[in-house]
Amino acid sequence: MEVMQVLHMNNGEGETSYAKNSNIQRKIISATNSRLKEAILNIMCNNNNNKNVPESIGVADLGCSSGPNTLMVVSEIIDIIDETSRKSGISFPELRISLNDLPGNDFNDIFRSLPSFFHKVKEEKGAENCYVVGVPGSFYGRLFPQKSMHFVHSSSSLHWLSQVPLGLGTNNAIMSSLNKGKLYISHTSPSDVINAYVSQFQNDFSTFLRSRSPEIVPGGRMLLSLMGRSSIDPTIEDGCYYQWELLANALSNLVSKGLVEEEKIDSFNAPYYAPCPEEVKIAVENEGSFMIDRIETFEIEWDARVSSNSSEDKILLSRGQQVAKTIRAVVESMVENHFGNEIMDDLFSVYGDLVDDYIYKKKAVYVNLVVSLKRKE
Amino acid sequence: MEVMQVLHMNNGEGETSYAKNSNIQRKIISATNSRLKEAILNIMCNNNNNKNVPESIGVADLGCSSGPNTLMVVSEIIDIIDETSRKSGISFPELRISLNDLPGNDFNDIFRSLPSFFHKVKEEKGAENCYVVGVPGSFYGRLFPQKSMHFVHSSSSLHWLSQVPLGLGTNNAIMSSLNKGKLYISHTSPSDVINAYVSQFQNDFSTFLRSRSPEIVPGGRMLLSLMGRSSIDPTIEDGCYYQWELLANALSNLVSKGLVEEEKIDSFNAPYYAPCPEEVKIAVENEGSFMIDRIETFEIEWDARVSSNSSEDKILLSRGQQVAKTIRAVVESMVENHFGNEIMDDLFSVYGDLVDDYIYKKKAVYVNLVVSLKRKE
Repeated sequence: MEVMQVLHMNNGEGETSYAKNSNIQRKIISATNSRLKEAILNIMCNNNNNKNVPESIGVADLGCSSGPNTLMVVSEIIDIIDETSRKSGISFPELRISLNDLPGNDFNDIFRSLPSFFHKVKEEKGAENCYVVGVPGSFYGRLFPQKSMHFVHSSSSLHWLSQVPLGLGTNNAIMSSLNKGKLYISHTSPSDVINAYVSQFQNDFSTFLRSRSPEIVPGGRMLLSLMGRSSIDPTIEDGCYYQWELLANALSNLVSKGLVEEEKIDSFNAPYYAPCPEEVKIAVENEGSFMIDRIETFEIEWDARVSSNSSEDKILLSRGQQVAKTIRAVVESMVENHFGNEIMDDLFSVYGDLVDDYIYKKKAVYVNLVVSLKRKE
Repeated sequence: MEVMQVLHMNNGEGETSYAKNSNIQRKIISATNSRLKEAILNIMCNNNNNKNVPESIGVADLGCSSGPNTLMVVSEIIDIIDETSRKSGISFPELRISLNDLPGNDFNDIFRSLPSFFHKVKEEKGAENCYVVGVPGSFYGRLFPQKSMHFVHSSSSLHWLSQVPLGLGTNNAIMSSLNKGKLYISHTSPSDVINAYVSQFQNDFSTFLRSRSPEIVPGGRMLLSLMGRSSIDPTIEDGCYYQWELLANALSNLVSKGLVEEEKIDSFNAPYYAPCPEEVKIAVENEGSFMIDRIETFEIEWDARVSSNSSEDKILLSRGQQVAKTIRAVVESMVENHFGNEIMDDLFSVYGDLVDDYIYKKKAVYVNLVVSLKRKE
């Protein structure tokens, strides 16, 4: 599976779209708002020295996706810059906003909503100097010109690896069978599987930092939030892996109904990794051009009681089914690519039931890891 | 009609798509290739002084549309920069490419073809430093940050006005009836209609220049090609207006069949203007920040014998029908918005027949106007 070709949040505005099922990601963005403010204040005030506000500020949102969350981040950034400018008695600076995602992302959807969004921004903030561009490409590679960025933001994206960990590809029957019946690291996974994931994350995260390093001005900031875990051991249940475990169980259920071949499960390994803070620290230290300002984790409930925008859904669907819709909007492009379109409805229906059972018995939370970084001078 | 909301070349890759019906525009791009080369050489060599090659070059294509022509322009620009770099013994400079069109343009289509395109560019040219972004918005307004552009290109786009000329809007029954049975300036048009078009063009072209002026570095270049005319009088038949005249005739034909209401034709006025060189000169002189390096016109046959990419079409379709497909791919979004989707097939079928009659009797050519401009130092 070529992750860059396949991975995208569900397009459009239909029932299974990401636009309609991205409230969890919205909550995560809201939860990191104080960190966003901190980072931008730091850029604009350069350690409380108001004389150094840059005339032109470059900001990027990596893995911007489409739907309401994309413009929510942009809107928050504009608000913070507007507020800070007013307080400092300066006019709104030139603001260059780059929205990045993989080429399969629905950029048309974002672009069509920009005119009315900017009409509003200009009326409310008098911010005439905002320039928004779409930047298609993988953040595991260069995206922006030299020293063009003051602030890089990424939320709910960096847990996606650049590829299925080396050796766990669909063509490797021996390695595939190592992770039998599983889609990601599980408590039954042998060390070869765990090591493959760990080193893929280290490689990818280092590549990410190395790619951003020349793009960000000295003193520039990054705020990254991604799925993570608190424990060092990736097989402990808090490790944001249980959603994959249940998806594997749902697929096994379809195997028993003759709808899926067992080998198909063995040969799928998610290009995903939820790191612990220590792993992020190691990658940052090894790469060397960034300093960690803060690194923290917070928990968010799987359903968070807001997993659908439609109030009708909230009445008709169980909490598990609502969680299933959220997960479907994110992983369907990949799962469909491997297992075929025809089983998707069945799969996520069974999945919803399994989630219902699970959240009845256990505390079902995602652990979110938030890292605030500074580009060394 | 809100031009910005409505106008876009036909999306997708189907039979009526712009991607499949844009060979005329491709021929126009090819015809201006020597001017493209001149402009870029000028930027890179700064009047033959090789020491001043910019480290980072900003180029933009305005009205880039989607389909094969979009990347053809990018490809030619990269080729010229690559060749010049090699000759000058310097490495390929950082190249920032901005692809602009209205928000309704199919940017997804462009973005999805970029990875394979850039894989090839990197392999063939070793050009690692190319950054491509999509910039949605009207070129009758600011698009880019201050002094970020060295070269701005636009082909087959600037004949589109920002709006239907003031006073000729669909809500003005008196003015509408002035241009009875016509969609654009015609030999029967009263002076009020002609004046409305002329002053809308002057306003728009001035706004265009005023918007680019702060964006382009001193000494930077623009190469603009658009539909135009040779004669001062806009009602003379060479004035690229006959394609609108025939479309009006085709609509009248549908009126006689009861498929279109006559008033609908009266109330449609195309947001289009094909200027003569003198009109462009006036706007450039009045705005004041650019110098005209060259201004010239050339003719291109309506059918140009290449109006379809499909060899099957060339056998099955008459020349008129081929021309109709080219025009449909360009104007359908607007015409459909006003007259309704259901008559489109009939309309362009009748149109094709009328074009067949016309090109049998007359020399049917588009006049293309090409302007090469330099941003004053």
